[in-house]
Amino acid sequence: MSPMRGSASTTEEWRHLRLSHADGVTTVTLDRPDKLNALTFGAYADLRDLLPELARDGRTRALVLGGEGRGFCSGGDVDEIIGATLEMGAGELLDFTRMTGQVVRALRECPFPVVAAIHGIAAGAGSVLALASDFRVVERSARFAFLFTRVGLSGADMGAAYLLPRVVGLGHATRLLMLGEPVGSEEAQRIGLVSELTEDGRAGEAAAALAKRLAEGPALAYAQTKALLTAELDMPLGAAIEMDAATQALLMTSADYAEFHAAFTGKRPPKWEGR
Amino acid sequence: MSPMRGSASTTEEWRHLRLSHADGVTTVTLDRPDKLNALTFGAYADLRDLLPELARDGRTRALVLGGEGRGFCSGGDVDEIIGATLEMGAGELLDFTRMTGQVVRALRECPFPVVAAIHGIAAGAGSVLALASDFRVVERSARFAFLFTRVGLSGADMGAAYLLPRVVGLGHATRLLMLGEPVGSEEAQRIGLVSELTEDGRAGEAAAALAKRLAEGPALAYAQTKALLTAELDMPLGAAIEMDAATQALLMTSADYAEFHAAFTGKRPPKWEGR
Amino acid sequence: MSPMRGSASTTEEWRHLRLSHADGVTTVTLDRPDKLNALTFGAYADLRDLLPELARDGRTRALVLGGEGRGFCSGGDVDEIIGATLEMGAGELLDFTRMTGQVVRALRECPFPVVAAIHGIAAGAGSVLALASDFRVVERSARFAFLFTRVGLSGADMGAAYLLPRVVGLGHATRLLMLGEPVGSEEAQRIGLVSELTEDGRAGEAAAALAKRLAEGPALAYAQTKALLTAELDMPLGAAIEMDAATQALLMTSADYAEFHAAFTGKRPPKWEGR
Repeated sequence: MSPMRGSASTTEEWRHLRLSHADGVTTVTLDRPDKLNALTFGAYADLRDLLPELARDGRTRALVLGGEGRGFCSGGDVDEIIGATLEMGAGELLDFTRMTGQVVRALRECPFPVVAAIHGIAAGAGSVLALASDFRVVERSARFAFLFTRVGLSGADMGAAYLLPRVVGLGHATRLLMLGEPVGSEEAQRIGLVSELTEDGRAGEAAAALAKRLAEGPALAYAQTKALLTAELDMPLGAAIEMDAATQALLMTSADYAEFHAAFTGKRPPKWEGR
Repeated sequence: MSPMRGSASTTEEWRHLRLSHADGVTTVTLDRPDKLNALTFGAYADLRDLLPELARDGRTRALVLGGEGRGFCSGGDVDEIIGATLEMGAGELLDFTRMTGQVVRALRECPFPVVAAIHGIAAGAGSVLALASDFRVVERSARFAFLFTRVGLSGADMGAAYLLPRVVGLGHATRLLMLGEPVGSEEAQRIGLVSELTEDGRAGEAAAALAKRLAEGPALAYAQTKALLTAELDMPLGAAIEMDAATQALLMTSADYAEFHAAFTGKRPPKWEGR
Repeated sequence: MSPMRGSASTTEEWRHLRLSHADGVTTVTLDRPDKLNALTFGAYADLRDLLPELARDGRTRALVLGGEGRGFCSGGDVDEIIGATLEMGAGELLDFTRMTGQVVRALRECPFPVVAAIHGIAAGAGSVLALASDFRVVERSARFAFLFTRVGLSGADMGAAYLLPRVVGLGHATRLLMLGEPVGSEEAQRIGLVSELTEDGRAGEAAAALAKRLAEGPALAYAQTKALLTAELDMPLGAAIEMDAATQALLMTSADYAEFHAAFTGKRPPKWEGR
């Protein structure tokens, strides 16, 4: 057991998400299919809390995020969330909007790659969950909709105005966030929002296959790649190069780097240990 | 009348631009068709001064920027501007180049979306006016040309070396700004420089239609989306997410957000008030 | 001779690179064709030292970087470098990884455009050399492979996690750096990694032609365009616009700007002096 574990207990049951784990891959499923997996306060809170707990636990080497039923996620629930926020005061509103942002931070900061499996619709907060993931495996008939302005809110929600220009460029991001129109998979692929395109009904298995491959790979190398991709968006070139140099020097002392060399000289495939 | 109005008077006549206003849409037309709308000192100054005045006035909810005649804008006038700058000292040169930059800042900072209607050519400063707009509605035969190096100047003019990499990526931006070659609408669309492509002769009406739609929409939501898209290019992820949380909490107290919920539950379209 | 020359001597022989110079174009060729131009410690060091020396010397107005034989560059040599680093301590590892980063800084900071001629494979450190160049002239059958994770290392190597998202967007960059899979020229072009696509066997001459054109052009304008493209990735909009204003005011006093005006009014092509 890791000496970095403290007193925090492990949650026995995540009540607002469905969870499974096998061979290093944790699969998180949004599971309110009758509501197109509309997010409730509980679902946001569980996503916020789950990711740091998985990071602490150490067993997760890749995560799949998907939705049950006809679509990935239709966003915040109109009845539960929009209705409730209309009754809230400033402090409660901030508690809510900060919680949604913490989900995005958790997705960007967890030390394993997150693969979103997108079918049907990824709308509102659902589109930002997809955007904040490392990989988006997208079915041909799937659509994204950053529809915040359509409910009278800012298109800059949960970091979308930070992330989307860095994924698709400022021009496309402005159009998508201002107008909130649906974006089909073809356009999504053309502008850089798709990591892997699949036929309908296949995003789940393709995402699982990618996650399995990542889980079997050099986990420490992946974790550092993700961490530095995230950090270096906010760093100047000189500092980024220095950070790369220090990180790479450290990884050159890792078991996996030695294993690569042994495998290469031995003309066999490497057995990654992830450290 | 807004209590944020002070003593500043309203300009009665913009002499270097053509201006009209209807239903929340202000239309600004570069109007020197015999010179392909080449910009004069006066035109730069009017663009710099007009946008803050429109922001103060509060009637503008979307702006269309277009050009009369055969093209959008051929850039700074060779005779008036290049000739004149050759006679200037350091202080005057800075007065001029700063003024051009202030036009770009005004375009990025005004609290309403700017829709550029591009036909024919958008060259030099004209290409940067288009680049700094929120939407570029572009005719099929239109071309962009960031031709600053072709006159012996830096391709980094009026923020182009900041904006263009964030719109089309560093590779394309380097090529476009270094070589200054014309970019047709097809390539412009492929690399992310086009918000909406139209047939020839239709950019003006398409831009007007988009502006009308924006003017009828949730203006405060659009204004915040634009402001945060601009600001979050220069912010780290954590701060951007915090800014989103505070802004969204504020907008959750707005009339338009309540109106969305009332309209949704009443199964009718929302009537946006823009506040 | 420039008064900015000090005591530093000029290297008489670059032993780990092949070098030639004609008409302002310096051509640097990676020349270990039996090893697919795998980089040795010496080759990294020579690249690091050569570029500042060329900048000091002042004769280079454009640089072509290419590889002899079947490909551009297969990256760090498995035998010499991976094997050797496994024996190194922390200080030596940092000496090495910092040296590789200094090559990238030198490519971004030298005051002339760098044109990479890519054929066959640009892998590992070779893919980052291409990425850090200003132009990538790429043959149809060429491939890029950011394969760092495949050897157990971080995909963030030599600034790749800084540069690649700014060239192709965060989504594609994550996929390329995490998975390390080969990217063909067609995909490379689609995502923004290609400046000019050529038929097989033609990248060298196309790169030379582009470099010749750049060397005959307004060198000071090109140098400032490159410097500001690099700097403004790390600057907020307001500061970038101020930097553009000061730079452009300076260039308006340059010989080439006056020459453009004289040529334009005289209806003849300009003769660029590069100052």
